[in-house]
Amino acid sequence: MTKVRVANFTVSIDGYGAGPEQSQENPLGRGGKELHGWFVATRTFQQQHVEGEGEGEGEGTTGIDNDVAARGVDNIGAWIMGRNMFGPVRGEWPDDQWKGWWGDNPPYHGPVFVLTHHARDPLEMEGGTTFHFVTDGIEAALSQAREAAGGKDVLIAGGVSTVREFMQARLIDEMHLAISPILLGAGESLFEGLDLSEVGYQIIEKQLGEAALHVMIARK
Amino acid sequence: MTKVRVANFTVSIDGYGAGPEQSQENPLGRGGKELHGWFVATRTFQQQHVEGEGEGEGEGTTGIDNDVAARGVDNIGAWIMGRNMFGPVRGEWPDDQWKGWWGDNPPYHGPVFVLTHHARDPLEMEGGTTFHFVTDGIEAALSQAREAAGGKDVLIAGGVSTVREFMQARLIDEMHLAISPILLGAGESLFEGLDLSEVGYQIIEKQLGEAALHVMIARK
Repeated sequence: MTKVRVANFTVSIDGYGAGPEQSQENPLGRGGKELHGWFVATRTFQQQHVEGEGEGEGEGTTGIDNDVAARGVDNIGAWIMGRNMFGPVRGEWPDDQWKGWWGDNPPYHGPVFVLTHHARDPLEMEGGTTFHFVTDGIEAALSQAREAAGGKDVLIAGGVSTVREFMQARLIDEMHLAISPILLGAGESLFEGLDLSEVGYQIIEKQLGEAALHVMIARK
Repeated sequence: MTKVRVANFTVSIDGYGAGPEQSQENPLGRGGKELHGWFVATRTFQQQHVEGEGEGEGEGTTGIDNDVAARGVDNIGAWIMGRNMFGPVRGEWPDDQWKGWWGDNPPYHGPVFVLTHHARDPLEMEGGTTFHFVTDGIEAALSQAREAAGGKDVLIAGGVSTVREFMQARLIDEMHLAISPILLGAGESLFEGLDLSEVGYQIIEKQLGEAALHVMIARK
């Protein structure tokens, strides 16, 4: 059965999922890259993001962090992301030039649904990734993603505000959150004004990895 | 040289150092007791809080969490705490009946400076603990505590708002923060509106323990 999941989603100890001052040069904001250090170091990430280019094979850490990362990326049939995760362009699409942060061959290799207020034709990339632009909200995006996932899971990829929106609506079945031992100080807060306990979520599993604290959160 | 420290101070993954709805029956708020589970389990805590009563000797966990806890409680000459950590009484002291949460023999065995707006005579307890009530602010309390510490460290014991106040004023030399893998959902937030990075602090050490993620924070 299709699960709606968040996985390998990382926040700093002060609760930020991205740093301040995001820009095209610095898509994760100031300090945001360090946030994901635990994940980037794993063999799972290295194989997914670097292998195709002939690098990274057999590289990366194994251990608890890698096991958790691998569980997170397993069995995904479709992705949903917010527009800010797709790119820095705001408002109407001026043209079709922006094709995501990931180059010609994005690491998804499947259907990705991008939440936006501005319609745009589907964008077919190399390696099986197609970006679909959804203008009628998170529930519509989820229903399209479920269908496209063909029985596999739907991953809510981010960013922070998209994850918050899906959690608030109780549409997430399972969320893996990694707490990275860094201080961002400011940025996009996952928790501010969002009482996950009251919305109806609880921690069902915890694991202390080599470089991050992992918790699995599910509906009560 | 006397250091001003915070140690064994715990927050949930959503950044709360105490749960909502604090009361005399539930001084740490809803869910707050679970927050400190990692610390209570350690041999360090068991010896400090239970030994005197003939229980707890040789009990409690050893390992990373215990090592970090032991470092935290070592070499302390004086304590500072906010009034809400001392007790639930608000406003003027109606009488001298309230003597803290800890019974006749509190686990400090030294001078404790309680921040309050309402004067009260020093309160001498069994086992060497004396509560001094300081009405002229955190800097005055710190200067009295430094003097009383006799070259040992001053520990800012809590609660959340007292720690925030001292951090904001950059009066803390070293802070050990434990992140406990629980969700409180609401309560007293350590980080909300407090950009520790901008105030001038950074993480200098991280350790993943058996039941909590530990970070050491110091001035840049």
